[in-house]
Amino acid sequence: MTSAAEALPKVLDRIDAELDNSLARLFDFLRLQSISTDPAYAAQCKAAAEFVARDLETLGLKAELRPTGGHPVVLAKSEGANGGPHVLFYGHYDVQPVDPLELWQSPPFDPRIEDLGHGRKIIVARGACDDKGQLMTFLEACRAFKAVTGRLPLDVTVMIEGEEECGSKHLFAFVKEHADELRRDLALVCDTCMWNAATPSITTSLRGLVYEDVTVTAADRDLHSGLFGGAAQNPIRVLAKIIAALHDEEGRVAIPGFYDGVPELPADIRADLAALNLTPESFLGQVGLRIPAGEKDRLLIEMISTRPACDVNGIAGGYTGEGAKTVIAAQAKAKVSFRLVGDQDPEKIRDAFRAFVRARLPADCKVAFENHGCAPALQLPFDSPAIVKTRQALQDEWGAKAVTVGAGGSIPIVGDFKRVLGMETLMVGFALDDDRVHSPNEKYDLTSFHKGTRSWARILAALAE
Amino acid sequence: MTSAAEALPKVLDRIDAELDNSLARLFDFLRLQSISTDPAYAAQCKAAAEFVARDLETLGLKAELRPTGGHPVVLAKSEGANGGPHVLFYGHYDVQPVDPLELWQSPPFDPRIEDLGHGRKIIVARGACDDKGQLMTFLEACRAFKAVTGRLPLDVTVMIEGEEECGSKHLFAFVKEHADELRRDLALVCDTCMWNAATPSITTSLRGLVYEDVTVTAADRDLHSGLFGGAAQNPIRVLAKIIAALHDEEGRVAIPGFYDGVPELPADIRADLAALNLTPESFLGQVGLRIPAGEKDRLLIEMISTRPACDVNGIAGGYTGEGAKTVIAAQAKAKVSFRLVGDQDPEKIRDAFRAFVRARLPADCKVAFENHGCAPALQLPFDSPAIVKTRQALQDEWGAKAVTVGAGGSIPIVGDFKRVLGMETLMVGFALDDDRVHSPNEKYDLTSFHKGTRSWARILAALAE
Repeated sequence: MTSAAEALPKVLDRIDAELDNSLARLFDFLRLQSISTDPAYAAQCKAAAEFVARDLETLGLKAELRPTGGHPVVLAKSEGANGGPHVLFYGHYDVQPVDPLELWQSPPFDPRIEDLGHGRKIIVARGACDDKGQLMTFLEACRAFKAVTGRLPLDVTVMIEGEEECGSKHLFAFVKEHADELRRDLALVCDTCMWNAATPSITTSLRGLVYEDVTVTAADRDLHSGLFGGAAQNPIRVLAKIIAALHDEEGRVAIPGFYDGVPELPADIRADLAALNLTPESFLGQVGLRIPAGEKDRLLIEMISTRPACDVNGIAGGYTGEGAKTVIAAQAKAKVSFRLVGDQDPEKIRDAFRAFVRARLPADCKVAFENHGCAPALQLPFDSPAIVKTRQALQDEWGAKAVTVGAGGSIPIVGDFKRVLGMETLMVGFALDDDRVHSPNEKYDLTSFHKGTRSWARILAALAE
Repeated sequence: MTSAAEALPKVLDRIDAELDNSLARLFDFLRLQSISTDPAYAAQCKAAAEFVARDLETLGLKAELRPTGGHPVVLAKSEGANGGPHVLFYGHYDVQPVDPLELWQSPPFDPRIEDLGHGRKIIVARGACDDKGQLMTFLEACRAFKAVTGRLPLDVTVMIEGEEECGSKHLFAFVKEHADELRRDLALVCDTCMWNAATPSITTSLRGLVYEDVTVTAADRDLHSGLFGGAAQNPIRVLAKIIAALHDEEGRVAIPGFYDGVPELPADIRADLAALNLTPESFLGQVGLRIPAGEKDRLLIEMISTRPACDVNGIAGGYTGEGAKTVIAAQAKAKVSFRLVGDQDPEKIRDAFRAFVRARLPADCKVAFENHGCAPALQLPFDSPAIVKTRQALQDEWGAKAVTVGAGGSIPIVGDFKRVLGMETLMVGFALDDDRVHSPNEKYDLTSFHKGTRSWARILAALAE
């Protein structure tokens, strides 16, 4: 039997030759309007799950749709021993809503290739990157192995969920319930970014999250500002003062104890990060900004990956329609979230935040809190054999050293893989910063799709050794 | 011919005897759903205008509906010389929307009398106070004179508009266009409050208004807070810091030059105000508050009448629905308004506010402003013969000295009467602080309606001398 490493050159040739067919399959997938958060699209979500299951069957996996309290999970397993470690691949078939629709240059579910010139082509559609395009890089790599060698290079379990874009709320119970079917040697996820278009990346840490709703109430009804203005407490003003106090002049979060458990980077790691030379022009420039707004004494790359942060994600109070209404609102609300790193304790930070707010509340006001999440940060070992092999595979494909970086956001299920299943996760993805994920005109570089598929072929061959 | 003063005792008796019929007429008026801001109620607004016009005809006035760009104005004039000064009475037949409907204890357009015990009865309905109940006190006083003496005590022009609750936007042009028909010796308005249930009041000043929309923009799109959190400028935080800076620790507005033109009250007037002993318990307690939130060195009554103020009337940005969305908004908006007194210059304050915001704007942000109003404050002479006569008339009716106070809100048309027509306005009303004007379960005390009608009879007799 040919080893996976021996078959690799032919597998890579096969991927090159099959590119148009691979794209045709991806386009069929992208045409399915699998918006998970809107019940009106439930049938399209089911169709997307069935599409994935059928495709997995063609790879020789035994696939089925498993019901949940929401959209089904596609679960598939290779039959018999292919040898090597047994991996669990995770992805999601659901996509974000498409509004505002008028900002799309072409219909979001009518995928197309756009030629940007200079040899750069992009796939434009909702889900082109997140996560349909990304997950198909893995499946296309498996397909090429199957075509060339008649089998997969190692044992694979595939779990593709349909609720990632609305909080994966049924997946956590699903993982607990089916722990025996999901506990493998290693999890693989393709839902992250490259460092830049030329530099591959392995994600080795994820920031945690605390997300709080805060509601400040002053008077017991909305008031007329002509009658009460100047005397009545205004909850918008109270909330604004609290939000203004959350950061000090140096850009640090001013909540006592907030930085407990935040590790200082070793000097050499910090030097490595500095050497990546992430500039405000390149990172913030793409969204119309140019000045980092975080802690003044930190590198930009630290601000977005290895340092904690606090953001207000929403605020509402009083009259917000057209024109003038002279009202003093009874209530004002905000959504405040914290990105956590290292050993920061989510529950302690939630409690410290609430105490911070209460300490600034005028005697006449009341406050209510609602929590929407408390997840600790996740730090993966970045010297494991799997990561060492993967770095080499990525360098072979891209001709550039792969960087190991922290991701700013959280992929909550990866925390569960660790805590519930005791399993490490290898996060490799080919998204770029300008992919407009969650925004109109989402795209995925054709190179990300093509070389991403080739990268997975190399990684699978390396892991199978 | 009997003089108005000689006829007064019989007129007052007539008002007492007619109370049930007066209420029946008011109830018919209150059943008309004349919500001016919602086009769905246009026919009901017209019906209300026609109701008023028919009623004015029964008083011997020649009434007609005058078209405007919106709802019609009812204009009516007494025929022939009744002697004395010729007065213009202004009121409005339109009412506020009724939402939230579920908070009403009975249908808003199904008026009813509720007995609160201890001899206190209230009329409950949308418009019971503002302004149907108030304007009917004047018409019922006229009706009693007509019944007893066969004529009105002086010449009367009546203008009842239908757009007060949506900004009187066509009335300003109407007043200019029909200046010759409206320029009388004195304007009368019944749309203000009593000092308290036992103390009548004449309103001698009105605060002005500057109303601004502020929109802060940071990135050129909404961002994912996982990816950009910690580095990207957050416009909600920027706006919160600006709002927090609008007041200093003493509760004063911190915009440079804001207090230019604010008069200091003479010591004796301030002592008069202090003697009224407006307590936080009585004024703020009714809406669930107890601590005045304005300038620390000022009396509560100053805060709401003779001092300027700044309020945020609305704020919106980012995600404000249920649950969590980890977004950094591209934009945040607020509505900020200023109540002006004395000689504060609205345009200067608008410009100073905009400069204040711009000075606090991070280099990466943009700001846009939209103005929804710039009206100066209005100060009426409070020693004119009309006011002296009216104070005596009110004291005769209520057995308590009438106070002359400043009102916190603005009645923009009164400014136009002064500036366009050169006419002073006598503002007398019988509303109480707990009338829930603009809110569910609006009410008007039966005593306000009954003794309000008697008060107007006394005022008209006094003015006719």
